[in-house]
Amino acid sequence: MKNAVGREIPDELLVGGKEVYQGKGYMDGKYIKKASPCTRRCEKPQESKIVDSIAQALRDCGAKDGMTFSFHHHLREGDFVVNMVMKAAIEELGLKDLTIAASSLGAAHDLIADYIEQGKVIGIQTSGIRGRMGQVVSEGKLKTTAIIRSHGGRPRAIEAGEVHIDIAFIGAPTSDCVGNCRGIGGKSNCGSMGYAMTDAKYADHVVVITDCLVDFPNMPASVEAIDVDAVVVVDSIGNPKKIASAAARISQNPRDLMMAENVAKVIASTPYFKDGFSFQTGVGGPSLAANLFLEKFMDERGIKMGWAIGGICKPMVELLKKGKIGKVIDVQDFDLDAVNSINQTPGHYEMSASQYANPANKGAFVNKLDFVVLAALEIDTNFNVNVLTGSDGVLRGAPGGHPDTAAGSKCCIIVTPLVRGRMATVCENVVTVTTPGDCVDVLVTDYGIAVNPLRPDLIKCLDDAGIEHVSIESLKEKAYSIVGRPDPVQFEDKVVAVLEARDGTILDVVRQIKPYTFED
Amino acid sequence: MKNAVGREIPDELLVGGKEVYQGKGYMDGKYIKKASPCTRRCEKPQESKIVDSIAQALRDCGAKDGMTFSFHHHLREGDFVVNMVMKAAIEELGLKDLTIAASSLGAAHDLIADYIEQGKVIGIQTSGIRGRMGQVVSEGKLKTTAIIRSHGGRPRAIEAGEVHIDIAFIGAPTSDCVGNCRGIGGKSNCGSMGYAMTDAKYADHVVVITDCLVDFPNMPASVEAIDVDAVVVVDSIGNPKKIASAAARISQNPRDLMMAENVAKVIASTPYFKDGFSFQTGVGGPSLAANLFLEKFMDERGIKMGWAIGGICKPMVELLKKGKIGKVIDVQDFDLDAVNSINQTPGHYEMSASQYANPANKGAFVNKLDFVVLAALEIDTNFNVNVLTGSDGVLRGAPGGHPDTAAGSKCCIIVTPLVRGRMATVCENVVTVTTPGDCVDVLVTDYGIAVNPLRPDLIKCLDDAGIEHVSIESLKEKAYSIVGRPDPVQFEDKVVAVLEARDGTILDVVRQIKPYTFED
Repeated sequence: MKNAVGREIPDELLVGGKEVYQGKGYMDGKYIKKASPCTRRCEKPQESKIVDSIAQALRDCGAKDGMTFSFHHHLREGDFVVNMVMKAAIEELGLKDLTIAASSLGAAHDLIADYIEQGKVIGIQTSGIRGRMGQVVSEGKLKTTAIIRSHGGRPRAIEAGEVHIDIAFIGAPTSDCVGNCRGIGGKSNCGSMGYAMTDAKYADHVVVITDCLVDFPNMPASVEAIDVDAVVVVDSIGNPKKIASAAARISQNPRDLMMAENVAKVIASTPYFKDGFSFQTGVGGPSLAANLFLEKFMDERGIKMGWAIGGICKPMVELLKKGKIGKVIDVQDFDLDAVNSINQTPGHYEMSASQYANPANKGAFVNKLDFVVLAALEIDTNFNVNVLTGSDGVLRGAPGGHPDTAAGSKCCIIVTPLVRGRMATVCENVVTVTTPGDCVDVLVTDYGIAVNPLRPDLIKCLDDAGIEHVSIESLKEKAYSIVGRPDPVQFEDKVVAVLEARDGTILDVVRQIKPYTFED
Repeated sequence: MKNAVGREIPDELLVGGKEVYQGKGYMDGKYIKKASPCTRRCEKPQESKIVDSIAQALRDCGAKDGMTFSFHHHLREGDFVVNMVMKAAIEELGLKDLTIAASSLGAAHDLIADYIEQGKVIGIQTSGIRGRMGQVVSEGKLKTTAIIRSHGGRPRAIEAGEVHIDIAFIGAPTSDCVGNCRGIGGKSNCGSMGYAMTDAKYADHVVVITDCLVDFPNMPASVEAIDVDAVVVVDSIGNPKKIASAAARISQNPRDLMMAENVAKVIASTPYFKDGFSFQTGVGGPSLAANLFLEKFMDERGIKMGWAIGGICKPMVELLKKGKIGKVIDVQDFDLDAVNSINQTPGHYEMSASQYANPANKGAFVNKLDFVVLAALEIDTNFNVNVLTGSDGVLRGAPGGHPDTAAGSKCCIIVTPLVRGRMATVCENVVTVTTPGDCVDVLVTDYGIAVNPLRPDLIKCLDDAGIEHVSIESLKEKAYSIVGRPDPVQFEDKVVAVLEARDGTILDVVRQIKPYTFED
């Protein structure tokens, strides 16, 4: 069946009430009966929940074949926890048929690709999938269909009972002996623990893994002892230096700076740019650089930003410290400046992934956003964005908060160079739709700006401000004129991953890649 | 059927899996499948949830006959919210057959007695019940049996689905336009909002009632916007001056001070009195005064208190500010000094009622308590305590956190004068068992100290420290020798209230009072 972004969704996926994507806001106002865990009562006083090893914690929580284990990705590419736990489960306890339900996975988890090839790990539910894991899943080696969700879609799915977590593993920079956890105060600080919060509340069992045990009570706790079954102390939960990715630095590239300035100009041309406005930016170079130009416009107009949300990094923290932002509410930290600011700089608060972006609660922060500035791997002439699959069709990205902020914000701006190497970024059809075009308002490229025709109000804003803009078709043609019109990517029939829209409907599927064959 | 404290529980109450009280720790290790709400999705951005009136909020949340409304009691005797909401529901919407599930109720809610007599309110679930409401329930005028729970038993019952809240009403000192609430920053500050947190997470609908609207986002939020359907702005949610009760002042009475000093001596004689110990005290005069003497012993030994929990009042805040307590974790504030300290004095944190005392989560704060000092209306020779019914059998108290802290702490000390007016406090059989004797360790009276024979270790501590103690029987005889042996209170057969143990079993029942008749 074809969905609202024109993608053909195989009927065999539409079971158990699953629907195809119907457009933005389709589920609004509908009621949801929330799921709930089955948990063990600790009525008798217990001085400590510390156990000797991850294997012991797994046994105490009744770990067995076929279970779903959950993880959060606040340590990003520095995370050691997923591999440690899966190794203990598979190599020490001999478990198989396991599913990993993580808020995101990356190249730090290449080991899991082996477990997929061995058939030990048979399910993957995540936002990000990259490195060797992305490759083996794209090659069709995972026994079940992977499920890719946004950061708001994940707590929605957990709360709806679509993912039932048997054991949640919380990598915690600090914990006390009964499991009150914080993201700061230790040696592997990650700052916000926003993605772990829903897991702790909805998993049957919760195991905290920490490398810094602190005195009881570790307050204010991001994950609370009342939800924790066991605490394991290990040498190291990860390498916090790897939290910051190369992407999370402000670009000095003149082309990026030009795009960033145009983003700020677009923002300043809209009626939402007024004292107290709200803002989120991704961590791509040009998105981040937009902060600098935005500050200039704020100063010129004599206005301040009311609040900013998101993955937080240094530029936001600096604006907060300068008093140019009222509050920063933080679901994840992208660099150590942000890690060292949360709960310490006045006005810098932590939030859960559900508070951030869940489309099925009573109103997430993204719903109150004025502006979001986001990157894209590809964007097509219907403004559909792909941030998941490469131009070769292989899984190597993550929807993250992209679809959530795009849907919630009043003005969603995509900023991207028109071409990358030999690939057109603006194209006729993205390989995978990860953010639907009806949620995207403006595209800023190094070859021009295009406004979604669904937003005549924004077209008028740009016209009134004298900001030139063109059709997205003309940008695509320009891109193709530079790098040539690409051949469509070739896939096998087998669906290797389902890309869920944030509301739980199916936005797109990813199929098995076809091995490249040279034909003479 | 007779339960573990010797109370006869009528068989007709033992339905749907309900059991009689079996003793401390009976439910430990058993699994509980948690309940969950059915909630409305706000996928589409919504700028504000403010509605014009409580009546409108009720209509928007589908209020109808037979529903259960929940309330919290942080404004204590100054609360206006219960009456405002029930008046709107009954007089504006014409609803009937309503149940009130409150964390506590008091004389501020005398109006509800009228609604009980009119048959509009047919169910009461609460910890405290006093004033006219206590009277009419004791007279058998409530259509259903009232259910009395401790502060830990309430979140347990909500999480177990034994109370399903249709609409939770959150009286909030500050809220933003979408319902992020805090207990400070407004004109009717109550400090901690710990008792409201479980309600907000488990109710189908949540209405915030505030008298101080603040800018979005009101952070850090005690009740989160993601759980809130509607916000109503009223002139006043209550009179915060009435938060502090007469009881919450340090006594200057020499008899109280002598008892307080003996409490401190008992504490100092135990092995738990060491650097980093934990402590909770009730707000009765002698309990509070114990703080002063305890400070003296701490100074003498050169030790500090690690943490204190509970309902918090001025003496605890002062010890925190003096650096003599590490952390104060606060479920409710008993005076304005505490209200003005929470989240402001470093080390003074808020917690939920579940974190505080719920016996069915994975370990509440009470489970880590070294000492608790509590008052009693009556205590019998089996150390069973009554803090609910007066000597006339009428409902006029509240179990509160009494049974929870008694069960969780290593050393539970009851402090009470031997007689009050013409009534013996130490007696043969308490009118109602609200805290089972197996949770009570030491009794301190103005006529002597008694240690529960279940605790030979504590008897040895007192002996080693040269603290005189006597049998509780001898204290009872002393009391009877002063005021005479009382006639048993006369009741009708009808059960008007069930007193649930914190684990959900039935600890005791309260029967309809017999009108006093003069017989010639």
